[in-house]
Amino acid sequence: MPRSRRGGAALPPGSVIGILGGGQLGRMLALAAARLGFRCRVFCPDAESPAFDVAAGQVIAAYEDVGALDAFAENVDVVTYEFENVPVAAASRLAKRVPVRPGVRALAVAQDRLAEKEFLSGLGIPVAPFAAVDDEAGLGKALAAIGAPAILKTRRLGYDGKGQATIPADDQAGYQAVAAFDAIGRAPAVLERFVPFAREVSVIAARGLDGRVAAYDPVENVHRNHILHTSSVPARVSPETAGEAASIAGRILAALDYVGVIGIEFFVVEEAGRERLVVNEIAPRVHNSGHWTEDACEVSQFENHVRAVAGWPLGPAGRHSDVVMTNLIGADAAEWLALAAEPGARLHLYGKREIRPGRKMGHVNRLVARV
Amino acid sequence: MPRSRRGGAALPPGSVIGILGGGQLGRMLALAAARLGFRCRVFCPDAESPAFDVAAGQVIAAYEDVGALDAFAENVDVVTYEFENVPVAAASRLAKRVPVRPGVRALAVAQDRLAEKEFLSGLGIPVAPFAAVDDEAGLGKALAAIGAPAILKTRRLGYDGKGQATIPADDQAGYQAVAAFDAIGRAPAVLERFVPFAREVSVIAARGLDGRVAAYDPVENVHRNHILHTSSVPARVSPETAGEAASIAGRILAALDYVGVIGIEFFVVEEAGRERLVVNEIAPRVHNSGHWTEDACEVSQFENHVRAVAGWPLGPAGRHSDVVMTNLIGADAAEWLALAAEPGARLHLYGKREIRPGRKMGHVNRLVARV
Repeated sequence: MPRSRRGGAALPPGSVIGILGGGQLGRMLALAAARLGFRCRVFCPDAESPAFDVAAGQVIAAYEDVGALDAFAENVDVVTYEFENVPVAAASRLAKRVPVRPGVRALAVAQDRLAEKEFLSGLGIPVAPFAAVDDEAGLGKALAAIGAPAILKTRRLGYDGKGQATIPADDQAGYQAVAAFDAIGRAPAVLERFVPFAREVSVIAARGLDGRVAAYDPVENVHRNHILHTSSVPARVSPETAGEAASIAGRILAALDYVGVIGIEFFVVEEAGRERLVVNEIAPRVHNSGHWTEDACEVSQFENHVRAVAGWPLGPAGRHSDVVMTNLIGADAAEWLALAAEPGARLHLYGKREIRPGRKMGHVNRLVARV
Repeated sequence: MPRSRRGGAALPPGSVIGILGGGQLGRMLALAAARLGFRCRVFCPDAESPAFDVAAGQVIAAYEDVGALDAFAENVDVVTYEFENVPVAAASRLAKRVPVRPGVRALAVAQDRLAEKEFLSGLGIPVAPFAAVDDEAGLGKALAAIGAPAILKTRRLGYDGKGQATIPADDQAGYQAVAAFDAIGRAPAVLERFVPFAREVSVIAARGLDGRVAAYDPVENVHRNHILHTSSVPARVSPETAGEAASIAGRILAALDYVGVIGIEFFVVEEAGRERLVVNEIAPRVHNSGHWTEDACEVSQFENHVRAVAGWPLGPAGRHSDVVMTNLIGADAAEWLALAAEPGARLHLYGKREIRPGRKMGHVNRLVARV
């Protein structure tokens, strides 16, 4: 039985938001949705998904389970997703029955590094020089075209540094290029010229169903072992660079007719005393580098994502505090009691059953100063 | 099988907090608990409880169902409650098996107006002149002792003005006193002298397992039709009165060896240019007049209640903004779209399935100015 409220511009409170993926991002989306009176139904293959604990409905099924997908579509008013590796086939199947926001195109573009790079450069947005690599012969041609140092990345399913291998500048004989190709399992790949960046920043931005955009201030990110370690706001970039980053975000959102929150990672290159932005990658979802918005902004990235996918007006993305977000990775989370006692530290834990090395267990936002 | 983590000073993340009652207060407690990595299990007789939608576990059972209570105790690490009319027998039964916070005594005192008044006056805390009324003869004696105008209130199960009837000053023949007694069903009652108050304020305060107290700033409350309409901070009271209110809160918390958040309602009486406080009632739980803390404080009443019952250190109760909280009663909630679009308005909806007259559907916090 189709749900009667479907298709209206703004979903009323009590509507059901379907979330594909049950990790911490889904959990925080569900918490934000609950505050606005929505119910959430979370679809995830993993029975121990953190988002299940705060959702009104849970579906434990594979993304290839068409029966489960069809039933899910019947029981929700809109579908969103918390990670970019949801199979496009699953999202497309759902989209025939219920609005999927952000749309399938954003998902398809973001989950293939080659499609993403081509999309961005097609918009005239600067990216690292890149070339597709399908086989060892192609690798040689790509290296000749792009130069080294370079990074070989699988087109699909990479995250937190997985599926990547570096080719140094002095790889005269090409041994390390072949080793890199082996390291990523000889999967279809993109070779990217290494960008000599001074720092990494990202922009979290939301676009509503009405096309309006709200962009949060750029955030400066520091990675450790390829995993985000801290995000600090304000980022050390000029006002012009900050404006350019927001402008690029707006162009990407418009080109994808995007609905929801997007995370856009940039390299900041310093050349001759000037800053230049290069887009590293985009994530069609709420983003780890946006967790600071929960405590330093009136409306968080999670609430704005919910507002967007529900067809509600976006809330303000203004920031009231300078803040440093620190991820709690693995055993970092064992310090929960000290963090809970630290004045000015806002602790967020994801309810994961087990601490594992490299696992994102929570984060802490430290408010540094009022703006 | 007893849970192994029980009895430790601070419950680790992943512990299960049992909540008796599934209304909006339980829902907001569950949301705050989830953010700290806890799981919640909600016990409520009503299958359509708003808190069920955000809790990892749900028990639909009567508070008299001892089998359900015993099973609940086995599956949680601590028990708290979101309303004061949980039967003491249920709380006592649970307390034999698992910590119940706040304790059973606070519950027993707060759910009987006579016990509450006697407890407060025993501490030397000013309350309205009162007398117990068990029958019509007692009513006459009480009226003679207390005088009129007065309010006759059932000892138990009153809320939002229910179970109350007024006796005016000019009730010479006593007809209206008898009518008032009839109106409250001739239930055991307390007669309270009417307090000619200038305004109503409340204090929301938390006490940790370690005995430390964090009190939020006094809030000024306006009721309509006996239901809280707005709560505004700062309240229009002198610094001395604000200090006195916090001091009274501290004495009540200490006397009850209380763990958790309490709401204490005061009348402010103005006499000869001076303010005097009279405690109207206490609520051994998070409180509607504390909802402003969600958006105007670093740590909300809900998080501090969770911290307290979990044995965690309390968070700061400081306030960063002036704020007005407005309840959305019944059809007020139909304005959700306009409220969502209002800059500076933070909307909270409870996910109740049906709008009914007089039903609390949500609230909105309007931040007025930074402190």
